[in-house]
Amino acid sequence: MQQALLAAAEAAADAAGAVIRPLFRSALLVEAKGDASPVTEADRAAERAIRALLAERFPSHGVIGEEYGAERADADYVWVVDPIDGTRAFVTGRPLFGSLIGLLHHGRPVLGLIDQPATGERWVGLEGAPLRFQGPMGGTPRTRPCARLAAAELSCTSHEMFTPEEAPRFAKVRAAARRVTWGGDCYAYGLLALGLVDVVVESDLKPWDWAALVPVVEAAGGAMTDWQGNPLRLGASGQVAAVGDKALLPEICRLLA
Amino acid sequence: MQQALLAAAEAAADAAGAVIRPLFRSALLVEAKGDASPVTEADRAAERAIRALLAERFPSHGVIGEEYGAERADADYVWVVDPIDGTRAFVTGRPLFGSLIGLLHHGRPVLGLIDQPATGERWVGLEGAPLRFQGPMGGTPRTRPCARLAAAELSCTSHEMFTPEEAPRFAKVRAAARRVTWGGDCYAYGLLALGLVDVVVESDLKPWDWAALVPVVEAAGGAMTDWQGNPLRLGASGQVAAVGDKALLPEICRLLA
Repeated sequence: MQQALLAAAEAAADAAGAVIRPLFRSALLVEAKGDASPVTEADRAAERAIRALLAERFPSHGVIGEEYGAERADADYVWVVDPIDGTRAFVTGRPLFGSLIGLLHHGRPVLGLIDQPATGERWVGLEGAPLRFQGPMGGTPRTRPCARLAAAELSCTSHEMFTPEEAPRFAKVRAAARRVTWGGDCYAYGLLALGLVDVVVESDLKPWDWAALVPVVEAAGGAMTDWQGNPLRLGASGQVAAVGDKALLPEICRLLA
Repeated sequence: MQQALLAAAEAAADAAGAVIRPLFRSALLVEAKGDASPVTEADRAAERAIRALLAERFPSHGVIGEEYGAERADADYVWVVDPIDGTRAFVTGRPLFGSLIGLLHHGRPVLGLIDQPATGERWVGLEGAPLRFQGPMGGTPRTRPCARLAAAELSCTSHEMFTPEEAPRFAKVRAAARRVTWGGDCYAYGLLALGLVDVVVESDLKPWDWAALVPVVEAAGGAMTDWQGNPLRLGASGQVAAVGDKALLPEICRLLA
């Protein structure tokens, strides 16, 4: 069963990449000048391709995606997908967006795949197995020890993702960390899983933003929870904290409280 | 002469890449956990390699670099180099840093090269010639028309680069632009030269941060000046604005005033 699930996740990412790759940095995108419609079209076409593939292999499984909503969301297995996570990165030609394929079993994220169609990088996390990673720029698929927040590399896509109530809570983590790097979307979690980033704190994430990331981070030795340290589940707040070294989590949750 | 200058710039970037590439995402960097010293070492070794190469080919030229300062800065031709622009990106495994090789003639930037050692992308701008670009992820080496700031993709490495006095001036541009993407360092200017970003506004840039970028942006059809619209020269303020469509510049300078 695990092999069939993994094969389906990889095939789904391949299908998404085949739709997305020709558009990246294309004349169509240049001419669109910030108009998101070509991206939305690609996102939809890729999600349709993913859904068709999963429905054929696992007709009883549920699927949740940004563009076409939820089908059979009460099934034992529910796929949670986002063909283009990081629209701003994609639109501006940065190879930091990704295709996300996650799988929940009774609500728990058990399989996650991050694919970077432009660079050819792919992270595959399966509950109970070590992280698999391949890509032409190298990287070792495990988090690194970093028990002190003062030594930690923090990453966050944008300070604008926080509400006025959340911003000062994030600012405490930012002040305590060694340094922050902005931008990244799902790629930042991939870098955390390679031991190059120690902490990611974000908010306003939807299930299709985090479902694939949790198994990747966990398979690399890290942890990914909400700001209270609770497991991420459907209906979660969208406040997310990921750490490479689990020892960092209590301090981060305390600062975010 | 131009061919010899171009060949030297390319050879300098090759030399920098050969020093830098083995360190990217290496175990040494993972183990350093945010300690910049391995990067500083690579930066220094790469700058020494560049300086040795340039001194052999053009003994009368000057050189300015971040690590080893200025030599013969009053020469007719002065090379301005930064082997690793975007240290935070480099340290966290993002392929958005770059090696920058610029050349000033009587103070005017006339040749610029941005090299991305991890992805294999290279931009080469020479005064009076169209931009050359090569890379495995594609892209067309010219800026796009975008005469309205409301339609423009804005990019900025970090909102933390602005002083308290500058921040509200940048905020006006940010509010008027369609959207902002954070992160990028020199790569953002490369994306502007591919017609994927319309505006970059930054501050606190040193000559080795901007000297190579100006000829790239100009050769692609754009403009790069200080916040008053003046050409960038040694001794400039470090406040920088780049636009793909020159028609945007007056409005941006007005907002930044």
